Amino acid sequence: MSMLITGISELVTCDDTREDGGGSPLTRGLGVVEDAALVVGGGGEDSAPVVEWVGPAGEAPEADWAIDLGGQAVVPGFIDSHSHLVFAGDRSAEFAARMTGQAYDGGGIAVTMAATREATDAQLRALLQARVAEMRAQGTTTVEIKSGYGLDVEHEVRALRLAREVTTETTFLGAHVVPPDARGEGGREAYLDLVCGEMLAACAPHARWVDVFCEPASRYAFDEQESRRVLEAGRDAGLELRVHGNQLSEGPGAQLAVELGAASVDHCTFLTDADVDALAGSGTVATLLPGVEFSTRQPYPDARRLLDAGVDVALASDCNPGTCSSSSMPLMIALAVREMGMAPAEALRAATVGGARALRRDDLGQVRVGRRADLAVVAAPSFLHIPYRVGVPIVRALEI
Amino acid sequence: MSMLITGISELVTCDDTREDGGGSPLTRGLGVVEDAALVVGGGGEDSAPVVEWVGPAGEAPEADWAIDLGGQAVVPGFIDSHSHLVFAGDRSAEFAARMTGQAYDGGGIAVTMAATREATDAQLRALLQARVAEMRAQGTTTVEIKSGYGLDVEHEVRALRLAREVTTETTFLGAHVVPPDARGEGGREAYLDLVCGEMLAACAPHARWVDVFCEPASRYAFDEQESRRVLEAGRDAGLELRVHGNQLSEGPGAQLAVELGAASVDHCTFLTDADVDALAGSGTVATLLPGVEFSTRQPYPDARRLLDAGVDVALASDCNPGTCSSSSMPLMIALAVREMGMAPAEALRAATVGGARALRRDDLGQVRVGRRADLAVVAAPSFLHIPYRVGVPIVRALEI
Ligand SMILES: [Zn+2]
Ligand SMILES: [Zn+2]
Repeated sequence: MSMLITGISELVTCDDTREDGGGSPLTRGLGVVEDAALVVGGGGEDSAPVVEWVGPAGEAPEADWAIDLGGQAVVPGFIDSHSHLVFAGDRSAEFAARMTGQAYDGGGIAVTMAATREATDAQLRALLQARVAEMRAQGTTTVEIKSGYGLDVEHEVRALRLAREVTTETTFLGAHVVPPDARGEGGREAYLDLVCGEMLAACAPHARWVDVFCEPASRYAFDEQESRRVLEAGRDAGLELRVHGNQLSEGPGAQLAVELGAASVDHCTFLTDADVDALAGSGTVATLLPGVEFSTRQPYPDARRLLDAGVDVALASDCNPGTCSSSSMPLMIALAVREMGMAPAEALRAATVGGARALRRDDLGQVRVGRRADLAVVAAPSFLHIPYRVGVPIVRALEI
Repeated sequence: MSMLITGISELVTCDDTREDGGGSPLTRGLGVVEDAALVVGGGGEDSAPVVEWVGPAGEAPEADWAIDLGGQAVVPGFIDSHSHLVFAGDRSAEFAARMTGQAYDGGGIAVTMAATREATDAQLRALLQARVAEMRAQGTTTVEIKSGYGLDVEHEVRALRLAREVTTETTFLGAHVVPPDARGEGGREAYLDLVCGEMLAACAPHARWVDVFCEPASRYAFDEQESRRVLEAGRDAGLELRVHGNQLSEGPGAQLAVELGAASVDHCTFLTDADVDALAGSGTVATLLPGVEFSTRQPYPDARRLLDAGVDVALASDCNPGTCSSSSMPLMIALAVREMGMAPAEALRAATVGGARALRRDDLGQVRVGRRADLAVVAAPSFLHIPYRVGVPIVRALEI
């Protein structure tokens, strides 16, 4: 079975092998086809739908079925390469207190850990599925999901098992923080032993990635030596690497990620010139998470500096209960444009092909013959409306 | 017919006569009822639904029908007291060029004026209805709509006639700018004569309000004397007053609005201490439009200063093709919290009762027995999720 999709005012392919058809400098690098059509084939129970044909509407072949989008833009589905979706509990009051400068000892991550441990599988699964559906409704077709709120063997494994039900991009983040119940004398070392030993062994079958919160400025996060230990143990267990780094201060995260060949270092809010240089010559993507800066009132990372240095940049949501509760990739694009010096086309690439690179997924992020037909529809004539119409829900994943 | 609404985890009434039931300082001033129920009556063809009962779920009376919201928050529908929804054409490329610092002579408002004049009634009506529906889908139940892209008698009248089909809150803004086709020798004076004469006479039957873009820093906007003339002419024609003021620089707008008893002065980005003092003792609301600052990269107005001085503050979208294409009141609340020093409760009040005051509508903006049942549902346990989950479409108007 094949389906012809017409009525596409602007098709953003992000296909680097395609010449830009639009001609506008605003869409340069996006492989735009104006007044386009698409044919999608396959799909069904056993296989994902695949792009079979891309081109001008006037040249489109026939297909078994057809839908007409009536003059909307189509973009590659967003790749949200950084999220923490397996959790229970509510920390909106903590956010409100932070925003209003009030002291608030709501317990922070301990609240999430306790609520997450306490939730049943069915409750966590329902929350997770609702969050993934919410993301799809905003155009996200691939999501990476981390553990990191279980913080013991049983609950870290459970988080990854549940995450694996909704994505292949699962990340073991036992080294999220030293858990509240392990902050006593010797607890930190014992917890790291657990993370790199029994917990890793139990989690590795359910994960593709290992991650660590490398942040010497944070008392319960991990320094360079600890982070290296976690990442190397993960690598030895067959996992690929990603790093939380340079969020709260300059630190070793970015260069450690490059040195160890991590796919991505995420946050990158505080980078030295040496960090930028290291990233520029590397296979490590800098993943920026501007929803965190919005929600914590921190300064935004300087995406312009990274792009100008030739660093691969991705955008992701970091959707989590503590520091950014937004799952909106359209908002991340708008913040990238407003606050981080990215052109709309750069932001769109970072949210699609950038995210795919951050997940080392060559099959995603582009609309291209032979690739998966993961598409998002913009209820507007151009993708430029994503930042232009900030906050308005105009992007949704196309259900085929 | 009456309907019982249950499953309300948190009912934000914004009813000043009600004591706060929640006890949290984060909800102070919102007249919150936790685990609440509502009975709504009336409605149908001839009358708007009205709130008949408000209280704890355990005390709710019976009703003819019932719906269960399953643990969501309910807030008063947003009052978007400032928008420019009657237009055709696309200026997203102008936005993109501005954000990337590129020179771009797309024509600005001239593009919108030409496209709007050229559109048929049916086309403009369809655009307008789609925009109002988009607002409702984001929780806005009342919208003020201005003319100002026709800029001749025929097209200003048409804009107001169409706007009147969807709202009672229509505003004559012939004095939006001196139109491009009147910028020659003597054109400015002739245009003002037209606005205050034939155009006003033709428009007044379709409008409740008159407005003027009072901005001496802008070459094609209006200075104090010109603004006063427009407002006084409008008042003499039976219209009530509102003012665009202090957007681009300090200027006479705010004090003129106070002096003439305008319901609101909108933007208020650049205010002197004397402006704040004048507003504080007045019946004029300061309406803040942070979507404009987001979309133009201007500094945000200082809401904290206004609130601390005792000024009535409203939030609105200013949804328009040039300086803010967002119609999202949830985003405006989030920006107010992130960027303007407003507590979540203050921002929610500004988007509801604040907007109602800016429109001098005592019947709107509160959930209260005898008032209109204009309600919005938040897909979350608390209204705090509106800024917490910035960008995620969790608010919608409740269709009864
Ligand atoms: Zn994270
Ligand atoms: Zn305006």
